[in-house]
Amino acid sequence: MSATDIPHTLDLEDFEVGQTFTAGPVTVSAEAMKAFARDFDPQPFHTDEDTAKGTFFGSLAGSGWHTAALTMRMLVDSGLSPASGLIGASGELAWPRPVRPGDTLRIVVEVLEVRASQSRPGQGFVKARITTLNQKDEPVQIFTCNLLVFSRDHKLSKAARAQV
Amino acid sequence: MSATDIPHTLDLEDFEVGQTFTAGPVTVSAEAMKAFARDFDPQPFHTDEDTAKGTFFGSLAGSGWHTAALTMRMLVDSGLSPASGLIGASGELAWPRPVRPGDTLRIVVEVLEVRASQSRPGQGFVKARITTLNQKDEPVQIFTCNLLVFSRDHKLSKAARAQV
Repeated sequence: MSATDIPHTLDLEDFEVGQTFTAGPVTVSAEAMKAFARDFDPQPFHTDEDTAKGTFFGSLAGSGWHTAALTMRMLVDSGLSPASGLIGASGELAWPRPVRPGDTLRIVVEVLEVRASQSRPGQGFVKARITTLNQKDEPVQIFTCNLLVFSRDHKLSKAARAQV
Repeated sequence: MSATDIPHTLDLEDFEVGQTFTAGPVTVSAEAMKAFARDFDPQPFHTDEDTAKGTFFGSLAGSGWHTAALTMRMLVDSGLSPASGLIGASGELAWPRPVRPGDTLRIVVEVLEVRASQSRPGQGFVKARITTLNQKDEPVQIFTCNLLVFSRDHKLSKAARAQV
């Protein structure tokens, strides 16, 4: 099942293991990297080309949190759209290599697990792996997350649909 | 050992299990929450007070990625300052409760594990738990991360010190 076969908003019943979603591309400029880093991760290898040279990264690299934020932005556009919203409870995050100025990123999302909550009727979790790739198809971030998703007849799903 | 006993920049040799570091507070305004969400996580419960009412969160809530970014900002100021910089390789992230407008956040960092790399001399990992708490001392984010840290005699540590 590809993203194009999936209705615009999804409920727990619509998810199944093996579904994939994609989004992007987004090109990351040095200016955007440095602006984010100045606000949230002001370290020399994220804020200044010259100072970055003598560091682990060897040249300007994006903050992992910038990559994470850009990944979230793409995810919102990916078609993986629970009616009640993308609500992340937890996840495992890895940054196998840096993002560089001018890199073009995209995401591939794979549904790994779908399970209904035993204790809370109408509620469940979707486990998904969100891989953020650069223009060479190399992963720059892998986020395996647990999303809180509601059933079609849950009041939150109904409320969300009524608002559209 | 408290943060005040620790030299300004740290090398792998300076870390030990049980060290703690703290930073903050940072107060999060509705405006900052919404601005971040507009850029990176444009979902109704993060961008609009009225629309947020009918959702899982019940009222405006910050994006978890905003909390993560603010946590990173605090971490840079925490005294947990490897000479070669804060380089996160991976981690586990959980958001046990939302951040609300006006919340005042702070972080507590605990060193859980320190290990030298077997394959790469002069290099190692520090595993730390970074708990982000609100003004009621409730955790809003728990990030257990693996930081890449270098030994005192590694060329990157020396280069970083030479730049100061």
